Amino acid sequence: MLVTKRSFRLPAYTTEGGRTIKDVRVGYESYGKLNAAGDNAVFIPHYYSGTSHAAGKYSESDAAPGYWDAIIGPGKAIDTNRYYVVSADALCNLNVHDPNVITTGPASLDPDTGRHYGMRFPTVTLGDSVRVHKALVDSLGITRLHAVAGASGGSNQAMEWAVNFPDFVERVVHVIGPGFSISPWVIALLDAWVAPVMLDTHWNKGDYYHGPSPLEGVTQALKTVALTARHWDWARNYFGYRLADPAKLPLNSFAHQFRIQEALQQGSSLTAKLVDGNHMIYMARANQLYNIEERMDRIKAPILFVPSATDLVFPPQFALAAAGRFRAAGGVAQVFVIEGDGGHLDGVYSIARAAEAIRGFIES
Amino acid sequence: MLVTKRSFRLPAYTTEGGRTIKDVRVGYESYGKLNAAGDNAVFIPHYYSGTSHAAGKYSESDAAPGYWDAIIGPGKAIDTNRYYVVSADALCNLNVHDPNVITTGPASLDPDTGRHYGMRFPTVTLGDSVRVHKALVDSLGITRLHAVAGASGGSNQAMEWAVNFPDFVERVVHVIGPGFSISPWVIALLDAWVAPVMLDTHWNKGDYYHGPSPLEGVTQALKTVALTARHWDWARNYFGYRLADPAKLPLNSFAHQFRIQEALQQGSSLTAKLVDGNHMIYMARANQLYNIEERMDRIKAPILFVPSATDLVFPPQFALAAAGRFRAAGGVAQVFVIEGDGGHLDGVYSIARAAEAIRGFIES
Repeated sequence: MLVTKRSFRLPAYTTEGGRTIKDVRVGYESYGKLNAAGDNAVFIPHYYSGTSHAAGKYSESDAAPGYWDAIIGPGKAIDTNRYYVVSADALCNLNVHDPNVITTGPASLDPDTGRHYGMRFPTVTLGDSVRVHKALVDSLGITRLHAVAGASGGSNQAMEWAVNFPDFVERVVHVIGPGFSISPWVIALLDAWVAPVMLDTHWNKGDYYHGPSPLEGVTQALKTVALTARHWDWARNYFGYRLADPAKLPLNSFAHQFRIQEALQQGSSLTAKLVDGNHMIYMARANQLYNIEERMDRIKAPILFVPSATDLVFPPQFALAAAGRFRAAGGVAQVFVIEGDGGHLDGVYSIARAAEAIRGFIES
Repeated sequence: MLVTKRSFRLPAYTTEGGRTIKDVRVGYESYGKLNAAGDNAVFIPHYYSGTSHAAGKYSESDAAPGYWDAIIGPGKAIDTNRYYVVSADALCNLNVHDPNVITTGPASLDPDTGRHYGMRFPTVTLGDSVRVHKALVDSLGITRLHAVAGASGGSNQAMEWAVNFPDFVERVVHVIGPGFSISPWVIALLDAWVAPVMLDTHWNKGDYYHGPSPLEGVTQALKTVALTARHWDWARNYFGYRLADPAKLPLNSFAHQFRIQEALQQGSSLTAKLVDGNHMIYMARANQLYNIEERMDRIKAPILFVPSATDLVFPPQFALAAAGRFRAAGGVAQVFVIEGDGGHLDGVYSIARAAEAIRGFIES
């Protein structure tokens, strides 16, 4: 399945906080075909560090397909022979240096000044991304969303879709999400994630677009994200108490590492080159602001909660509690738990384990 | 119970890594009296960010007693009417600016150069601290340890005591510990804890003793420690999704905070003034190096494992698995789980819940 990135533009968008952003652009890609009634669409918002590349490849030679390729495609759980699947970049998407990401955020040029926004960019919420995506979806001729399905921060956007456009959204798949609000512990965890960016001397209060960028801080931030989105069983099973180089004892030098240290450093160093530090900070704030507890009874769509058994960010108890609350408020909720040792990220890398549950829900 | 800090000095100590440190000093305090046989002593090593102030007060006007005062004192679980309890500062104790802490580490002056060691200080292990403490204990006329009891990093030192001095240690109380080795996940978590220190521009590769110290990095590091040593239930129960100031919406400014953000910042800002950044880094390494798996069968002492049910650092499964391994190797193990929402730190702040289990084990 070969896919192409496209760009959607709004001349202006006014945020929840009442600030107007001009020339808003977000990238999107689609799989499958929209039917004549425009009502066979499935929308896929992305997680904190993710992009709109949910499935397929850009070229045959791509090393890997999009992150949910296991469940999106012809004959798969979200069957592109039946559904028109659209995935879009959020505002303040982290990966601004990925050529396949199009987003608007602190790294964008402010049309009024010709300079990068930096930390002068308005705070945007996940609801703001959803409203921009609603305009995109309208522009594509979509009349209703058969489903919105997202992982983690994407699951929060799926809820924002359902509460803000209750007659437009027919199903919600809330994968590795917190339920109807971010948890207070994760409010603080998001701060711990992005603190290294702000400590990097090159961050310069967000004005670094004409000098060296806070690459070291971004790398460390991504390491902390990668670690806390996993689980101690994963760490033990994949790395154990082993050295990166058996000849280099950590007793003898701080430069001598354990395997897990080396792996996190290598993985994050590669990703960091694509990531903008300010966007990490803005996306963290957007997730801290996620709270639809007071409005959840407006949701008409049934919700499938798909937690991961070993999730240390949004543990499965959150999904079970949210499902209970939703049922008590008259809603329809199902829960399917992904078993595994992969922690939070089992909702991304092990999503195949939930394929039949998602297929059944989407087709019901 | 009023206590006094004392200082113990070794003219020289050679580390596990083979480096000799001159003029090694550690602080200690004691509660109760040593009997004539010298065999009624209980030793208390401290946790990562802790000190030798395990119980009692330095003066009547102290706001709070030592951290395990709930279980150490006359008539308490570790009964100072019966036992001579000694607690000592580890090498590289974090709190070098606490007037009641005496330690040797990167912030100390190297007698050979007259300059602060900084990152030139030798790597020290928890076993190194234990060997220095063994010399202290010998100097006090102690002939055997009735028990060694510690929380977290202190529980690892308790294990090092038992494995290195199997005929000297009669009981081990391993509270909120990992078992016989640090977990790979926590190897990486310790990196995430101390990374903010090294990103602070004032850290200067550890040479900051004649200029501004990396206070901002240390503060953030302590915030991350404080968060990860807790639990999402604690965060929800104590803070909820509430604002620090209801008139200041986080939607409108990054300076506007949630209560949990404010509480972590305030608590860590106060503590940071006492803490040395290099010592945080060295103590993290010491814990990363904790691994006695291959030698655990040398331990003769029975072990009481006291995990916390909500521990996200060393979850109770670790203690249960270690107890099973120890029994399989012919050892005697008991497990008592502290119930609560306080996470890892329930082994410090809620230790009273384990008081009777500890009393029974100590007196058995």
